[in-house]
Amino acid sequence: MNANPKFLSANARVDEAAIAPLPNSRKIYVEGSSPDIQVPMREISQSDTPSSFGGEKNPPIFVYDTSGPYTDPNAKIDIRSGLPALRAKWIDDRNDTEALPGLSSAFGRERAADTKTAELRFPGLHRTPRRAKAGKNVTQMHYARQGIITPEMEYISIRENLRREAYIESLRHAGPQGERLAKLMSRQHPGQHFGASIPAEITPEFVRSEIARGRAIIPNNINHPESEPMIIGRNFLVKINANIGNSAVTSSIGEEVDKMTWAIRWGGDTVMDLSTGKHIHETREWIIRNSPVPIGTVPIYQALEKVNGKAEELTWDMFRDTLIEQAEQGVDYFTIHAGVRLPYVPMTANRMTGIVSRGGSIMAKWCLAHHQESFLYTHFEEICEIMKAYDVAFSLGDGLRPGSIYDANDEAQLSELKTLGELTQVAWKHDVQVMIEGPGHVPMQLIKENMDLQLEYCDEAPFYTLGPLTTDIAPGYDHITSGIGAATIGWYGTAMLCYVTPKEHLGLPNKDDVKEGIITYKLAAHAADLAKGHPGAQIRDNALSKARFEFRWEDQFNLGLDPDKAREFHDETLPKDSAKVAHFCSMCGPHFCSMKITQDVRDYAAKQGLTDEAALKQGMEVKAIEFVKSGAEIYQRT
Amino acid sequence: MNANPKFLSANARVDEAAIAPLPNSRKIYVEGSSPDIQVPMREISQSDTPSSFGGEKNPPIFVYDTSGPYTDPNAKIDIRSGLPALRAKWIDDRNDTEALPGLSSAFGRERAADTKTAELRFPGLHRTPRRAKAGKNVTQMHYARQGIITPEMEYISIRENLRREAYIESLRHAGPQGERLAKLMSRQHPGQHFGASIPAEITPEFVRSEIARGRAIIPNNINHPESEPMIIGRNFLVKINANIGNSAVTSSIGEEVDKMTWAIRWGGDTVMDLSTGKHIHETREWIIRNSPVPIGTVPIYQALEKVNGKAEELTWDMFRDTLIEQAEQGVDYFTIHAGVRLPYVPMTANRMTGIVSRGGSIMAKWCLAHHQESFLYTHFEEICEIMKAYDVAFSLGDGLRPGSIYDANDEAQLSELKTLGELTQVAWKHDVQVMIEGPGHVPMQLIKENMDLQLEYCDEAPFYTLGPLTTDIAPGYDHITSGIGAATIGWYGTAMLCYVTPKEHLGLPNKDDVKEGIITYKLAAHAADLAKGHPGAQIRDNALSKARFEFRWEDQFNLGLDPDKAREFHDETLPKDSAKVAHFCSMCGPHFCSMKITQDVRDYAAKQGLTDEAALKQGMEVKAIEFVKSGAEIYQRT
Repeated sequence: MNANPKFLSANARVDEAAIAPLPNSRKIYVEGSSPDIQVPMREISQSDTPSSFGGEKNPPIFVYDTSGPYTDPNAKIDIRSGLPALRAKWIDDRNDTEALPGLSSAFGRERAADTKTAELRFPGLHRTPRRAKAGKNVTQMHYARQGIITPEMEYISIRENLRREAYIESLRHAGPQGERLAKLMSRQHPGQHFGASIPAEITPEFVRSEIARGRAIIPNNINHPESEPMIIGRNFLVKINANIGNSAVTSSIGEEVDKMTWAIRWGGDTVMDLSTGKHIHETREWIIRNSPVPIGTVPIYQALEKVNGKAEELTWDMFRDTLIEQAEQGVDYFTIHAGVRLPYVPMTANRMTGIVSRGGSIMAKWCLAHHQESFLYTHFEEICEIMKAYDVAFSLGDGLRPGSIYDANDEAQLSELKTLGELTQVAWKHDVQVMIEGPGHVPMQLIKENMDLQLEYCDEAPFYTLGPLTTDIAPGYDHITSGIGAATIGWYGTAMLCYVTPKEHLGLPNKDDVKEGIITYKLAAHAADLAKGHPGAQIRDNALSKARFEFRWEDQFNLGLDPDKAREFHDETLPKDSAKVAHFCSMCGPHFCSMKITQDVRDYAAKQGLTDEAALKQGMEVKAIEFVKSGAEIYQRT
Repeated sequence: MNANPKFLSANARVDEAAIAPLPNSRKIYVEGSSPDIQVPMREISQSDTPSSFGGEKNPPIFVYDTSGPYTDPNAKIDIRSGLPALRAKWIDDRNDTEALPGLSSAFGRERAADTKTAELRFPGLHRTPRRAKAGKNVTQMHYARQGIITPEMEYISIRENLRREAYIESLRHAGPQGERLAKLMSRQHPGQHFGASIPAEITPEFVRSEIARGRAIIPNNINHPESEPMIIGRNFLVKINANIGNSAVTSSIGEEVDKMTWAIRWGGDTVMDLSTGKHIHETREWIIRNSPVPIGTVPIYQALEKVNGKAEELTWDMFRDTLIEQAEQGVDYFTIHAGVRLPYVPMTANRMTGIVSRGGSIMAKWCLAHHQESFLYTHFEEICEIMKAYDVAFSLGDGLRPGSIYDANDEAQLSELKTLGELTQVAWKHDVQVMIEGPGHVPMQLIKENMDLQLEYCDEAPFYTLGPLTTDIAPGYDHITSGIGAATIGWYGTAMLCYVTPKEHLGLPNKDDVKEGIITYKLAAHAADLAKGHPGAQIRDNALSKARFEFRWEDQFNLGLDPDKAREFHDETLPKDSAKVAHFCSMCGPHFCSMKITQDVRDYAAKQGLTDEAALKQGMEVKAIEFVKSGAEIYQRT
């Protein structure tokens, strides 16, 4: 599809690269309390330990799977039809929403009737939008505060636990060494949680209580029933977001759909469509209908298109119409820069890089032009009314975030953060879900202050940060400058990390950049989970390390975040298949390997029927000399 | 040279990619107190600020330059001759060393006489090795403790300050806005130093005192007079090391020399030659003679080659001969795994990944085979005698470092660290310079403990860590999993970070991997410098951010760590030269840009003759409406 210069609906096909199964992986579904709760996971099978290392079975491990039906060989994928509406029945059963006769927004109706875009419109939606019945509030927060555990909450509780108990149980039954293995593979270092309260097991009730408390959100618009529920909160696994979207300068609808399916294949938990080009509305429809993950947008971008880029011509009415337009398409969270207040704009004048948020600068300009308080701020409660009619979550935008190390943690940024805290309380009054966006560019020693102030000002509403970048001197490598900051702030308590790609500051990411950004942020989020002591987080590290030690090369590749690249790198030096069962690698060569020496010591222990430690103590006695001397023959050079 | 399957001395040529000047960069030399002290720096020139942004001059900035004569267009580079011996006179002037009649080591003499390797030997060395005169100690630590400031120390003091004062002075004279600019560009956030004591300016006396105290080292063997002095210590700029070296499986001498010149081009402060193949001795000679940075080795690797891989056949005598062989070639620091003591070996039996250090496992095997304490430990004072006769620094190896998250901070690792602390005191008794190697694989929350215990046990001897990797689940991305750990431990006080390349655990790095590893570690080290509050560290971030804000694309590329990649990424979407002077980028397109809006506000201020802040306050009055409305025209879509 990338090669197609003009996107035509009739020719739209799924990106073949996005639907191939991952190696040695199987899509499984864990059933909840009713058969319509089917929670996807990826099961990675492993080979047995070679007999020279003990020969035990290595049961499959389960990893979080964001890829939706795309990696399920039983799913019929046709992006012209979109994904099945798996949540439709749950929404329907609640009996608090109604199908509308048609689109409520003027712009939506206009576009639907526009013959010029007919050939590129998504053809597969055969339902009208839903909205809360009059007087009803359909947010997950509202249900949670009523004490209701929704199917979405139960789904999430299963998803977050990742079948950890089943995995450990399977280890116990893996052979005579089962108990030892179960202990070994589930062992984990205590975390440093900085005030997080992560339970040993995630129950549906815990999910409910966190949502009710506002400490987590489930972004799932009733008009995006295709989405698989997921949760964002400091007491859950750290999530990552991938930004996609075309601009006036580059890329087509097809490319953006491809980026979305590519991003979720590698682990994107949510996707933001930041398109600013001509076909924002149509692009978004294609993405939402085909996305199993929540979709976020920045509605002010589209509003600006509607006034031909003239910020001062923005009005509350047309912004309101845009919110409804997008809410009825199914956007799951809106970035709203309601904290960019008129009095904060002058605070940016002495900055090195001024206002770098697009949304922030639009609103700053509007405020100055009208010498009025931002309409997003003054109409905030009306926005809440819209949000709760569709269950769209707020992502309160950091329009005054620093765009350089120089500007980090300044008065403008922190003043806005405080306002976001006040707005959080307003949203919560309406039972509307909220997360808070964060910077940006922050040197390491100032990251903690960001987190601490956010927790304080915003009463633990989930923090959602872009990086932060920890230095400005590495354009081309900002996935890494920011991955450092992301891992750090994730550890401190940030709930979702917005990825940064290698192209940041230089150009729009292509598919390769999207993958590089995703993998970098997956590893940063995982490093944060380990550091917080998230229960079970170390299972995958342990499994991969065991495979590495036992020279199970294929398992080492497959247990990693990017099996393709690991295999490719290995094969550059040792391309033969036989090398993948070899007990050595290209770094030390076949004749000398430190891991092999350790194994020799263990083998000796096993032969003697001793525990490793006792064997080694005995190994210090005379007998060990013989053992090592004979074992040493394998190191003779040929 | 890479394409040459058989390396022949007669055909050896420098890698052309390594000698091209970097864009808009000029090699300068800052003279010290005598004309033979010529300290290299890279001066990066910048274009003027566009008139629409104020039109001021942007004086050149100075960055640390590890590339040696290779990037000096006036230097004649012939790798068959090697680099000039810039320190020869200083060494000579001290009158405490003597030129030996020939090589002292038996192995060195044997190889020199070996006709089989004649065709690949380095041909350009026309001097014999030097050694301390009887009874003399020629270490920089010894001089420092006598109160002597050596030319090496003065050189380093100039190097570490990076002409910061001259740069700020040049800003002051850059025009009517000079004072404002000087203040703006030199502003920096306070650091969090965790007990470091970094002065505002590095004086020669400060260098001396840190060396005397053992808190920093200058690795420069008297037989490597080609080296440009540099310092490793927590109160100086954080340094990085690049590992190169062939193995039995891959790569030739030529490729390794290319990797060295490539590594220093991108910022490697030291290089370790970890070759384990057939021509370790000859490879090393080529590398040292052509290296302007200190070279480290792990002598036990070569010793093991000499006994055909049979660890138990290692003896003190042949190890001693190896140390002398390498010391007379000019190796600047030796990794010696003297902390792998017999009683610690059993502590590794219950590990997930056993002993992963090659040196560590060799010594563990030797200890078990002989049921004796390690000869490195029992002969440690004799090793000190050799070190001080050539001024080779210890890099006390962490042979029991964890090879997985599971094994982090365990008893084996921390017991060894304590022993390294004891050995530090022994080395210091001999005035021998010492740094301490550290892990490895450590989750984020356990990194601080590593640093704190190292500082305590080893009395602030410089810490030199590999990563650490903060998770095991991303093979193919371990430059990033470890870059996170490296930035963090650098912030806490680690003096040098050993890079990890994307090929870690999978294969030997090629040139691309070397560069990716170097840049990742340069940015991690710099992030650490910023976080510690190293004086002047933020200058480069500030300069790059200013260039970014002013759409000086070329300056933005050139001020970064990798101008080539930044330019390439930019050109993927906007390849035309005109795009590089455009006031927009591909992300937002020509019609809308947040930075441009900020600039409009500033322009308005300038026109009114007001400060930015006053203008903005005024901008909230009625007049501002007109301004913004008229200025807004530039956003009209064409």
